[in-house]
Amino acid sequence: MRVQDCNWMQLEEYLREDDRIVLPCGSIEQHGYLSLGVDMILAERVSIEAADPLGVPVLPALPYGITPYFAAYPGSPTLSVETYKAVIRELLDSLYRQGFRRFLLVNGHGGNDPGGEAAAAWSAGYPDAQTVWHNWWKGARTWEVVQSIDTDASHASWLENFPWTRLAGVAQPQERKPMVAATIVESGAAQVREALGDGSFGGLYERPDDDVLRVWRAGVDEVRELIENGWTRA
Amino acid sequence: MRVQDCNWMQLEEYLREDDRIVLPCGSIEQHGYLSLGVDMILAERVSIEAADPLGVPVLPALPYGITPYFAAYPGSPTLSVETYKAVIRELLDSLYRQGFRRFLLVNGHGGNDPGGEAAAAWSAGYPDAQTVWHNWWKGARTWEVVQSIDTDASHASWLENFPWTRLAGVAQPQERKPMVAATIVESGAAQVREALGDGSFGGLYERPDDDVLRVWRAGVDEVRELIENGWTRA
Amino acid sequence: MRVQDCNWMQLEEYLREDDRIVLPCGSIEQHGYLSLGVDMILAERVSIEAADPLGVPVLPALPYGITPYFAAYPGSPTLSVETYKAVIRELLDSLYRQGFRRFLLVNGHGGNDPGGEAAAAWSAGYPDAQTVWHNWWKGARTWEVVQSIDTDASHASWLENFPWTRLAGVAQPQERKPMVAATIVESGAAQVREALGDGSFGGLYERPDDDVLRVWRAGVDEVRELIENGWTRA
Amino acid sequence: MRVQDCNWMQLEEYLREDDRIVLPCGSIEQHGYLSLGVDMILAERVSIEAADPLGVPVLPALPYGITPYFAAYPGSPTLSVETYKAVIRELLDSLYRQGFRRFLLVNGHGGNDPGGEAAAAWSAGYPDAQTVWHNWWKGARTWEVVQSIDTDASHASWLENFPWTRLAGVAQPQERKPMVAATIVESGAAQVREALGDGSFGGLYERPDDDVLRVWRAGVDEVRELIENGWTRA
Amino acid sequence: MRVQDCNWMQLEEYLREDDRIVLPCGSIEQHGYLSLGVDMILAERVSIEAADPLGVPVLPALPYGITPYFAAYPGSPTLSVETYKAVIRELLDSLYRQGFRRFLLVNGHGGNDPGGEAAAAWSAGYPDAQTVWHNWWKGARTWEVVQSIDTDASHASWLENFPWTRLAGVAQPQERKPMVAATIVESGAAQVREALGDGSFGGLYERPDDDVLRVWRAGVDEVRELIENGWTRA
Amino acid sequence: MRVQDCNWMQLEEYLREDDRIVLPCGSIEQHGYLSLGVDMILAERVSIEAADPLGVPVLPALPYGITPYFAAYPGSPTLSVETYKAVIRELLDSLYRQGFRRFLLVNGHGGNDPGGEAAAAWSAGYPDAQTVWHNWWKGARTWEVVQSIDTDASHASWLENFPWTRLAGVAQPQERKPMVAATIVESGAAQVREALGDGSFGGLYERPDDDVLRVWRAGVDEVRELIENGWTRA
Repeated sequence: MRVQDCNWMQLEEYLREDDRIVLPCGSIEQHGYLSLGVDMILAERVSIEAADPLGVPVLPALPYGITPYFAAYPGSPTLSVETYKAVIRELLDSLYRQGFRRFLLVNGHGGNDPGGEAAAAWSAGYPDAQTVWHNWWKGARTWEVVQSIDTDASHASWLENFPWTRLAGVAQPQERKPMVAATIVESGAAQVREALGDGSFGGLYERPDDDVLRVWRAGVDEVRELIENGWTRA
Repeated sequence: MRVQDCNWMQLEEYLREDDRIVLPCGSIEQHGYLSLGVDMILAERVSIEAADPLGVPVLPALPYGITPYFAAYPGSPTLSVETYKAVIRELLDSLYRQGFRRFLLVNGHGGNDPGGEAAAAWSAGYPDAQTVWHNWWKGARTWEVVQSIDTDASHASWLENFPWTRLAGVAQPQERKPMVAATIVESGAAQVREALGDGSFGGLYERPDDDVLRVWRAGVDEVRELIENGWTRA
Repeated sequence: MRVQDCNWMQLEEYLREDDRIVLPCGSIEQHGYLSLGVDMILAERVSIEAADPLGVPVLPALPYGITPYFAAYPGSPTLSVETYKAVIRELLDSLYRQGFRRFLLVNGHGGNDPGGEAAAAWSAGYPDAQTVWHNWWKGARTWEVVQSIDTDASHASWLENFPWTRLAGVAQPQERKPMVAATIVESGAAQVREALGDGSFGGLYERPDDDVLRVWRAGVDEVRELIENGWTRA
Repeated sequence: MRVQDCNWMQLEEYLREDDRIVLPCGSIEQHGYLSLGVDMILAERVSIEAADPLGVPVLPALPYGITPYFAAYPGSPTLSVETYKAVIRELLDSLYRQGFRRFLLVNGHGGNDPGGEAAAAWSAGYPDAQTVWHNWWKGARTWEVVQSIDTDASHASWLENFPWTRLAGVAQPQERKPMVAATIVESGAAQVREALGDGSFGGLYERPDDDVLRVWRAGVDEVRELIENGWTRA
Repeated sequence: MRVQDCNWMQLEEYLREDDRIVLPCGSIEQHGYLSLGVDMILAERVSIEAADPLGVPVLPALPYGITPYFAAYPGSPTLSVETYKAVIRELLDSLYRQGFRRFLLVNGHGGNDPGGEAAAAWSAGYPDAQTVWHNWWKGARTWEVVQSIDTDASHASWLENFPWTRLAGVAQPQERKPMVAATIVESGAAQVREALGDGSFGGLYERPDDDVLRVWRAGVDEVRELIENGWTRA
Repeated sequence: MRVQDCNWMQLEEYLREDDRIVLPCGSIEQHGYLSLGVDMILAERVSIEAADPLGVPVLPALPYGITPYFAAYPGSPTLSVETYKAVIRELLDSLYRQGFRRFLLVNGHGGNDPGGEAAAAWSAGYPDAQTVWHNWWKGARTWEVVQSIDTDASHASWLENFPWTRLAGVAQPQERKPMVAATIVESGAAQVREALGDGSFGGLYERPDDDVLRVWRAGVDEVRELIENGWTRA
């Protein structure tokens, strides 16, 4: 259930029986021909679909992440690593004081990984808190499905092209773009745009819905499995 | 238009003609019997309704704000003042580098006002940037409508009870709650809960839709007016 | 009981029934002819005598405080305001996570008052935590006893001259020193030493033990009363 | 001599002839069946016994250190690495301005080692200041004695069980506990408690006083040797 | 003498007899038709002319200061208040460790005044250090001369138009510009440029050299007087 | 052209055609028998000689750098790494907002290299900004000339002994000093002075002007080449 579909009395009731909560972590940034909101949309949706049958609350996605390397693409705001880590720490800290103990952070953008470090460092000092940072598309079982379909799968490629991240009226290129090494993000913003052009890191821009929905179902299942059994203590 | 309904090429196209953008600022926090997402929902929706006819892009709402005083109510995560100001500064800074120059921050939560200070301080050093921080429900014309209907209008009262912030199946109390002074938030979290009980600051919990929709239309009009004419330079 | 007279199993046992703890806050700094440790010694001893009959644990005194204005007197190390506040916040924070909820900070040095602000700000965000910052010699009833004896009572005067803060073999001046305004500490270290000379702020250097022990008993009683009843919630 | 047994005039006198001072660094934290104050007690006592014959002043122990990994054991408050380093820097800095030049920091807790880094970094910029960070129980000669007695010697084992760290009426287990790898502290607080149970890292819980007093005398001798000859310049 | 006309052996020699040093503080920023370096040039030159007969060393001017309000004028880089204060503190701190004790900071730009606060706060904790922050053009006697000549005297007016701040081949307007209130700098950069236009705050743009050289001589005399007698202790 | 030889109107004019600017980075620190200002003098002069024929503006040298290891030599003030990086970032940031896009930082002191890291990190997030950090004496072609003359070339040796860094009336030693390893700077200030004595890192103290002027011309040429062609984008 989405937190915004509850009031505080309902969460207080929930906390009498349970202490889990899910925070989706997104980024608003270029995704080639796809929506600027891909990472936010996918992290939030995969969390809600996974959590709903379990009755575990899902917070609104944190839309903004760490993406300085896409600075040359309009619509890609970024937070600094330091600020992002502070945001994660402070959200965990205040929710902990309100009774939550087990936090699943479902992340949709690789650049946000320092948030995972912040969460781990935070929880290390809390004997009764647990955090799990999960890059949903790279979960073992999900990634296995991806690889079984097409090993060229990357940022802004078919891997992120779902019915809910495509834009109406925007056609995708039909060719298979040569892969660009992920390390390009370590160079400056201008170099990144020069190297990436339209923004995709390579591969096909779209595949049949049958393919991407298989990826999606694996992603949802894997997040649900984590909500149920991803904890070292009950 | 919502930023997540665009790709970067469309925003780049937009920037050839315009440099305005809207950032809604919310908070996830107790709102009595209403949704924990009231501030986020209203700030984002009022922005989109106002901006859509103008074709100006609206970012996803920043869901999390500054609300330490509601710490005793589950589902009210807070950022520190310092971190919140950093988030605002960094979003403005990176969007500026991507070509945006006029920023309207439509805020739904009074506790976020340090974000307005951060925006003003940031833009002071940018000769060609402008920021406007707008608490939508307190805009002069909107507040006039509110007062003409019922002067007891506060946090979690009828003033925030819209068709899109009510929860299905949750009934509202029918009495008029005595007003609690807004300064209660300066005391500790436990005192705040003791003083507020269900979370409303007082007044009626609901009024006929005719009333609240008049407030809403005034709110949308006032935001639209700001997007069009709220700038000191074109 | 002193925390160093317990092991962790004993504190865990204690926490099953109670959640109070006392932190004495001292300073190592010039006290005229008296011990450099006056503030630490008094804060710790008054805490232990007050808490012992109640079985509430007393932490070791934090010996170091905020005393930049005594920089011209050897043996007066100081922490910065910022660091001191961080120390207080972090001690509270980690003890809270271990189960303590009510914290009495018994302070022996006026310059440490920013620690009280830090404690108040910290607890404001914790609905189930309480902190009390108590300057033991200025407690209402203790100060009344002081004033009934001699209104010239100040730093390094008879007011701090107890059997346990005097140094063997060091004689005290017999005259009544003219009072120096407390605001002298706002000037630089050199000015402070020039104005204070031996370090006392004025008044007699010693009084009969009958007098100072009356002050002491009032101080102990007042701290004990706070440990028992100084809380707004059980 | 203990600093709290002096007044400032006596330290000023001392500084005419000498510029050495000792700061013991402890931690309040679980030590199995032993006192929560073991690290503070040992660091302070070994310093005083070593320094007394030399007439070098010993500050009160800094009781609080860096021990986040023991967060699941009540009575183990921790400072952050950043704050701890600031405390060390600021104490050195203000004592330097008062005339001290050679600082021996006698440490009783391995987790405090960042304090040694802070001291080294601080003194690097002061041509006439020297700092030595000494983990007293790991000094070459002391550790040799330890190893000659029993190579299973660790946190909360016989190695820290002295007449002045035992608690009256608390019996020690009689078995030899299997050693736990020191790297366990790198995992979270809950894992640490699960792995350590009673808190000892392994080995016997007590040995005859003859043994531990040999360790003690070696420790005192080694600290005294450092006070006398541990400096690169007079 | 200029520090860059010495080697370290010469300064070490100087320190055997004296402990004074002068740090000029400038700013690179718009000065209407005059040099962008006016504040740096004047602060450094007035210091050197004043100090030379006394043999007191003058550091190179810190060229960069605090001037965010001139952001709309090219060639006006600014430091943040926080960074500027750190620069001042660190320069004082390291020079102190090298033997200097009396520091005269000769400032040429009003916006730098937080540097004076930083210097005062720094020296408050150093019993044997003194700092004087002197805005050279506002010294009592210098300002008296200015006022006796023309009360309209401001930033970028005749008051800063010396033979060594004029640019070859650049003519000055001949009219008397209406004065702009100094508080304009509190508004944003765009407003400042709109209000100031060419950058002068008003008054005549030039006056006969006889006038400005009288100001100059008063400025030099007043700085020299401070170097000689501006200290509270020798 | 030097920035202080321009007013803001002239820079605004320049920015219509160009967006390059040069910032020399120096340090005031011991250079043996040579001027304390060597690094500042050389960085500024090599920049001006290189830029003048091209009409590109050169800012005043930032005189102060990072040199904690020379703390035992009077006249060697230092900034902290953190503050230095902030200074570089803030100068770039404010000049960028005023229209500059290509920044050449000509550095004269190896210890300042963290400034280069700060510049690179800053520009990575600016798609249309470029920074080049150039240690002028270590440029490939300049260093080749140095090596062809004498491979013993180091701090305070003949390599920095130019007609504009020598002090009138100060004779140089005539012997060839044995080289000291550059890693000595990693030890404390006292050790550095003990190891270096007069401050030179070794080699001859002077060589004929023919030699050093060949180095100089190579240095100027290499900086000019960078101003012209050192950019990845026009």
